[in-house]
Amino acid sequence: MIKARVTVTLKNGVLDPQGKAIGGALAALGFAGVDSVRQGKVFDLELEGSDKVKAETELKAMCEKLLANTVIEDYSVAII
Amino acid sequence: MIKARVTVTLKNGVLDPQGKAIGGALAALGFAGVDSVRQGKVFDLELEGSDKVKAETELKAMCEKLLANTVIEDYSVAII
Repeated sequence: MIKARVTVTLKNGVLDPQGKAIGGALAALGFAGVDSVRQGKVFDLELEGSDKVKAETELKAMCEKLLANTVIEDYSVAII
Repeated sequence: MIKARVTVTLKNGVLDPQGKAIGGALAALGFAGVDSVRQGKVFDLELEGSDKVKAETELKAMCEKLLANTVIEDYSVAII
């Protein structure tokens, strides 16, 4: 079994109102000095098999098709 | 400036219907062999200052107070 973590983040320049709201909430809670917050998603997957190269190729295909919106998001795949 | 990444994931044993739905969608798209999917959140923060120890302490406090629901979620902090 292969464990993998896919991280999906907004591309630079794409507005992130949710991150901005979190930054505002942190400031309201007294955390000074937070310049920016951007929120992304993480997916922890368990795949059958043991071929890591094949798994990585498949994970990238999953990102392109479903997990990430490649117009506004970047993704990275890590086999754990 | 310090860049940090906070990753928040569901604790083991906590049901993740969103992850289950993603797993079902991947299967429907023809990706066989996906045993499990669990979704989490990632926060990319930029903090003022250069004291990494202090930053890590502060980031953990942010997680406890706002970023993670520690009843059902684990968090990890990484200074990049």
